[in-house]
Amino acid sequence: MKFSIAPTGRSLDVALQHKIDNKTKPQGSLGQLEQLALQIGRVQQTLTPTLSRPHLLVFAGDHGAAKAGVSAYPQEVTWQMVENFLAGGAAINVFARLNGIALKVIDAGVAHDFGARAGLIDAKISPSGTRNYISEAAMSAAECAAALAQGAEIARALADEGCTILGFGEMGIGNTASAALITHALTQAPLAECIGRGTGLDDAGLARKRELLAQATARAALPADAEAATVLAEFAGFEIVMMAGAMLGAAERGMLLLIDGFIVTSALLAASRLAPNLLDYCIFCHRSAEPGHLAQLADLEADPLIDLGLRLGEGTGAALAWPLINAAVAFLNEMASFESAGVSDKS
Amino acid sequence: MKFSIAPTGRSLDVALQHKIDNKTKPQGSLGQLEQLALQIGRVQQTLTPTLSRPHLLVFAGDHGAAKAGVSAYPQEVTWQMVENFLAGGAAINVFARLNGIALKVIDAGVAHDFGARAGLIDAKISPSGTRNYISEAAMSAAECAAALAQGAEIARALADEGCTILGFGEMGIGNTASAALITHALTQAPLAECIGRGTGLDDAGLARKRELLAQATARAALPADAEAATVLAEFAGFEIVMMAGAMLGAAERGMLLLIDGFIVTSALLAASRLAPNLLDYCIFCHRSAEPGHLAQLADLEADPLIDLGLRLGEGTGAALAWPLINAAVAFLNEMASFESAGVSDKS
Repeated sequence: MKFSIAPTGRSLDVALQHKIDNKTKPQGSLGQLEQLALQIGRVQQTLTPTLSRPHLLVFAGDHGAAKAGVSAYPQEVTWQMVENFLAGGAAINVFARLNGIALKVIDAGVAHDFGARAGLIDAKISPSGTRNYISEAAMSAAECAAALAQGAEIARALADEGCTILGFGEMGIGNTASAALITHALTQAPLAECIGRGTGLDDAGLARKRELLAQATARAALPADAEAATVLAEFAGFEIVMMAGAMLGAAERGMLLLIDGFIVTSALLAASRLAPNLLDYCIFCHRSAEPGHLAQLADLEADPLIDLGLRLGEGTGAALAWPLINAAVAFLNEMASFESAGVSDKS
Repeated sequence: MKFSIAPTGRSLDVALQHKIDNKTKPQGSLGQLEQLALQIGRVQQTLTPTLSRPHLLVFAGDHGAAKAGVSAYPQEVTWQMVENFLAGGAAINVFARLNGIALKVIDAGVAHDFGARAGLIDAKISPSGTRNYISEAAMSAAECAAALAQGAEIARALADEGCTILGFGEMGIGNTASAALITHALTQAPLAECIGRGTGLDDAGLARKRELLAQATARAALPADAEAATVLAEFAGFEIVMMAGAMLGAAERGMLLLIDGFIVTSALLAASRLAPNLLDYCIFCHRSAEPGHLAQLADLEADPLIDLGLRLGEGTGAALAWPLINAAVAFLNEMASFESAGVSDKS
């Protein structure tokens, strides 16, 4: 599967920067919001960007390794939380509703039969989730390709509906373990630095998670320059691969991407190896308290907007950062300039 | 002037923490938002807090020292920016509008005659701003008391209208210099650590600002335990004192206070010396790029919500943090519990 993502043009940079600098404020005084306004103007190639029909996609999937004990929660919490999303009671429902972001939930491979349900996109790659990567590859190359394609298709459908900004979230018991393996394989950061307590392992649980993931790494024995698709097939969940596909499909269509925390960034790491220009379209929303996120952000040279000690997933960091992104666009479009307001500039 | 501010009660803490911990998320996974929900529940003494009629007050005033060269901008920018606020073109207008916060502008002592104007509260303490603190006290003790009282009155009027959360912002060319002097006098942090580039001084301008403020400090020769009111009278602007009064008046009425950056925190430093329980009501919204803010935050042991490299003032950090505060209340009120959603808790 090939994705064709253009780098964002730089031809409007001078005009955008001029517009930003002539707003009635000291130059640079809106800090990261100014860089964000510039980036959004670049992506949309306009001095007056608009954020239309914002959506957040929550991809859910189960992990064969979850039953081996990599998480503090039992595997059935994945489908139970999907039910919670559909009922509107989870954190991501609350934050998306509050900020006017439409939410869609995608079953990428949850080990549960939901039947046909309003608000749930059935994109199951396997009815039982992934296989246990401690003893074998999590999925076949064909399953991986199917999940990427399915994700891209979901993003394209939203682009067709006029959505220009897309956030990503996930649910999958055990998926911080999967993200740790992907991060280690793609960034070569030491495995121990990629592993954290996830939803709340105690010390013994953390030690067990480390041991299991060391086994998985040894079993797969990937070379340092392994292809991203190979890494995903070895260790990912279907929710992670489908999310990577959605990122690629969205950027192909010129959408802005809201990147959440550790799991979402593991999908981005893989997706951006497949198409490096993808990163031009990404807004890093928050710094997760899960320690492996540091290694990811260092690899991607990213500086997220908020740092609230969040470690919930679901896309909550993206939903919470949304008003800041809206604010960056609003100041660019709505603030007066020194000339228009009759304010004296720096002497 | 005495203010009577009760400490926030702790009797609901166990019930609030139980409610937070039983939401469908790993314990603690909403990070600072969980602490914020607890604080807001304490201030309002309820498990179901509400944020009603949020307002942001922008206090404006002129500084006698501005003409001595402590700012990169000419003094008339103060009134020009007030006009910009009234016309709706400044950053704070854009962010307040975007987030549904009502904005009021207060002339605490701008050296300009606005006449009677819709949207402007005329609370001028002096028609020419403060005196130049390099050679004499910025204001008399009576003027300082009048500004405190006026600020408290403005906050009480909003409480009477049903406002339960109040943000603070300011405009006053030269007021980072004033805030630096107040911060040094009240925290005993070295003067050099309290002084920054403000709206954008170059190296020569910064050196001049340091020299002038060292002169002002030597002239006033305050003892290390000087009263907060004395410090304000020596160095403050009327906008800073009136803001301090508004904070005290608002907390007396049980309102939540949104604390912006360096200037607003200088007002809070003084106000909290007058009534230490005030701090129970304060939400620290953002970490300013102005270096003196660090000394203030260390003194107050505060950890702000956002850190975007902002150094604009006007209350922009408070307005930008507002959606996060809203989100903290929303998760507490709207998220499902493990029981209500039928989700298994940690095994």
